[in-house]
Amino acid sequence: MYSEKVMDHFTSPRNVGEIENADGIGEVGNAKCGDIMKIYLKIENDIIKDVKFKTFGCGAAVATSSIATEMIKGKTIEEALKLTNKAVVEALDGLPPQKIHCSVLAEEAVKAAIEDYKKKH
Amino acid sequence: MYSEKVMDHFTSPRNVGEIENADGIGEVGNAKCGDIMKIYLKIENDIIKDVKFKTFGCGAAVATSSIATEMIKGKTIEEALKLTNKAVVEALDGLPPQKIHCSVLAEEAVKAAIEDYKKKH
Ligand code: FES
Repeated sequence: MYSEKVMDHFTSPRNVGEIENADGIGEVGNAKCGDIMKIYLKIENDIIKDVKFKTFGCGAAVATSSIATEMIKGKTIEEALKLTNKAVVEALDGLPPQKIHCSVLAEEAVKAAIEDYKKKH
Repeated sequence: MYSEKVMDHFTSPRNVGEIENADGIGEVGNAKCGDIMKIYLKIENDIIKDVKFKTFGCGAAVATSSIATEMIKGKTIEEALKLTNKAVVEALDGLPPQKIHCSVLAEEAVKAAIEDYKKKH
């Protein structure tokens, strides 16, 4: 049912946690299942130096956030804003259709965290 | 949004894993979100000697399974069959309404695992 990459990022998620004094924090909720995703960014000269996430969501939410944080780390905020849910799901070699709504949390939380950073700077 | 007990069992879940040569295995799926719960039982003289679980589900699924495995460990299979979803949710000091469908997985998987054990013996 789930690809090897999904199971890898689900069982050993990367970049889990919080960042103290984060430059941008994005928190989004999933209307469909009531879950929450929170992403913390450390940004220097518009480059994402560090990123961490926390979620109460399911394995699909964990796996997509884990790979999404890897995909944006070291990138500029402009590049990170171009991260689509489609690209994240493709990087995981796909997800079952009923789990796509879980995966959207990662993209939304990244965007919200960058919004938050821009507001503050 | 979530009680201290829920967060405790979510962040430090008890009895996660598999049991090799389990006497009963229960696997159930959640039609609402597509998540899966799997429970393994080690049973001697109708007493649940050990129990482990694995899930791809969300934090509510993890927390309910974690506390449910604690509640049935050391019990007879007849006692374990009486475990209700209501009792599990109460032991966690409650869950938000939209997460009740996640919590049902634990009760169902325990029942399925005992069914499986009974079929084999
Ligand atoms: S959303 Fe699937 S188990 Fe909770």
